[in-house]
Amino acid sequence: MADRLVLSVDAMGGDHAPGVVVEGLQAFLKGRENVSFLLHGDESRLKPLLDAAPDLARLSDIRHTEDAIGMEDKPSQAVRKRTSSVRRASEAVKNGEAQASVSAGNTGALMAMSMMALRRMDGVYRPAMAALWPTLRGRIVVLDVGANLEADANQLLTYAIMGEAYARAIRGVKKPTIGILNVGSEEQKGHEEVRRAAELLKSSGLQLDYRGFVEGNDISEGTVDVVVTDGFSGNIALKTAEGTARLVAGFVKEALTSSVLAKAGAALASGGLRHLKERMDPSNVNGGVLLGLNGVSVKSHGGTDAKGFATAAGLATDLALSNFKDEVAASLARVRDMDATDASETAA
Amino acid sequence: MADRLVLSVDAMGGDHAPGVVVEGLQAFLKGRENVSFLLHGDESRLKPLLDAAPDLARLSDIRHTEDAIGMEDKPSQAVRKRTSSVRRASEAVKNGEAQASVSAGNTGALMAMSMMALRRMDGVYRPAMAALWPTLRGRIVVLDVGANLEADANQLLTYAIMGEAYARAIRGVKKPTIGILNVGSEEQKGHEEVRRAAELLKSSGLQLDYRGFVEGNDISEGTVDVVVTDGFSGNIALKTAEGTARLVAGFVKEALTSSVLAKAGAALASGGLRHLKERMDPSNVNGGVLLGLNGVSVKSHGGTDAKGFATAAGLATDLALSNFKDEVAASLARVRDMDATDASETAA
Repeated sequence: MADRLVLSVDAMGGDHAPGVVVEGLQAFLKGRENVSFLLHGDESRLKPLLDAAPDLARLSDIRHTEDAIGMEDKPSQAVRKRTSSVRRASEAVKNGEAQASVSAGNTGALMAMSMMALRRMDGVYRPAMAALWPTLRGRIVVLDVGANLEADANQLLTYAIMGEAYARAIRGVKKPTIGILNVGSEEQKGHEEVRRAAELLKSSGLQLDYRGFVEGNDISEGTVDVVVTDGFSGNIALKTAEGTARLVAGFVKEALTSSVLAKAGAALASGGLRHLKERMDPSNVNGGVLLGLNGVSVKSHGGTDAKGFATAAGLATDLALSNFKDEVAASLARVRDMDATDASETAA
Repeated sequence: MADRLVLSVDAMGGDHAPGVVVEGLQAFLKGRENVSFLLHGDESRLKPLLDAAPDLARLSDIRHTEDAIGMEDKPSQAVRKRTSSVRRASEAVKNGEAQASVSAGNTGALMAMSMMALRRMDGVYRPAMAALWPTLRGRIVVLDVGANLEADANQLLTYAIMGEAYARAIRGVKKPTIGILNVGSEEQKGHEEVRRAAELLKSSGLQLDYRGFVEGNDISEGTVDVVVTDGFSGNIALKTAEGTARLVAGFVKEALTSSVLAKAGAALASGGLRHLKERMDPSNVNGGVLLGLNGVSVKSHGGTDAKGFATAAGLATDLALSNFKDEVAASLARVRDMDATDASETAA
């Protein structure tokens, strides 16, 4: 396996595991070469699934674990289970057996396990979950979308630094623009943490292209390349956008089936509409990455389908092949030589 | 004017005032009877606009005020301007000259002025801004969408009580269901305030139909009739949904103009698509109401067009004609006789 990239998979995490996980990896395999898998989970359930998927089985090692962590388990409960599949998935990255991990399990447990196994990068108090958000101007980076409920000004500054480096590595934008999510774009708006974070970003001397506060509508408009927010607001924004997209898709469907004429029109326009459907499919944007760890850890939506899990696996692989960790580490190192550092490290 | 409903209008608030305000009222007038207007603002700018709109002019009194409050002014600056149009608009409701007010001005100033002029209802610590949110199951009530940045558990409880009464009065639902917005539906999720608010709602003995935590996607899915959240998250959710709807509308447009065939299909389906466009038009859902005041105060989007301002004016009028204030007051009174009251009043 030396020349292969190895993906470490939590095969038991998520609402429809392990079935969806195995199906997702099969879908992911198509068109990929030089990837193999460590599947962490219940062997008695994984073996029959792999027996039915010989192409995947050939590239997979099952690593049996007894305990699975439920979607409702607290991180503190999860940490006590020494042999959970999510923990083993992270540990395989830590000990160099794999180059990236992916899990559809519960965010809190994944966060706790990833931090324990992979450790935080220097200068990071709490890792953040970054999403790639579709906009009219291509995908942008939004973080934190749910790793931490709250974030103080220093954490928000760290998110900005990590998100900017991530956007640079992934999107190829040379100097990504940054905004802080707020309830208005005026400087005096918002609670203390966002206003202090804005001050830190402006005064940090980091040469970041900080553009000020942005509002909820600016996310999908792609006003900036990186939107920084706390995990509570970020998670609500992300899920609200998912729900709204589904609502509008329902409206479109109704409009195009409302009459014989509309149906005929939809049939004629079917090429464009198929492309639209593909664009709107949440499976195509599945996968958030935990930024700030010494290793690649990707979180899939817990309720995802096989196609969505394949997308998350693809993201993990792409990240393992990219230089994003170096970009993030270099940016964090730059902070440590600067004024902003003191404040940042006090918080840590 | 005795038999007429009088609408008190902040003619200077919003990005495109007073032009859009006057145009909006003209649009609003169509199909309405027995409504007249007090227009608070700069007479030298309003007079020529009304001269060009004789139907509206006949039903309007201009109340000249010198000072306008900018979209960037802080509430504390706004309060110092004794003669602002937004202040006068609220005062006219207070002194009984009008039955409702509408403003597209800055939220903070509107909130401060409305509280000063109209006073809070008994049992309300801070009024909340409620939006009517389109879902696949009809409109639901979401609050707070931006009146207050933060809300403690007692405030969230009060929002639930007011939102429920509002949904009952406006939507005609006998026993509206309630959810608290959170990052997961499991009971142990979220920060302390939402978990405490959930406990209060469950134990309040108020006989509210509380359904637990809901997530961002539940809003547009219409899982519950009333979604309760703090003003920071609520505002971000609302604007994120607006941005997402616009993004998807852009995708639809691209899909239906992507080829000659698609264009032909769109032409055939134009009836259904016109209905879709109407449904997606943010002007049709414009207007948030400040709940918890002794009077009707409606906030229009600051950047709205004339059609959107007409929608907000319509909402203000409908609310003035409804029994929503009595419903809210009755629910609040019921709380005061109960266990939950003590906690709630401590906060006040």
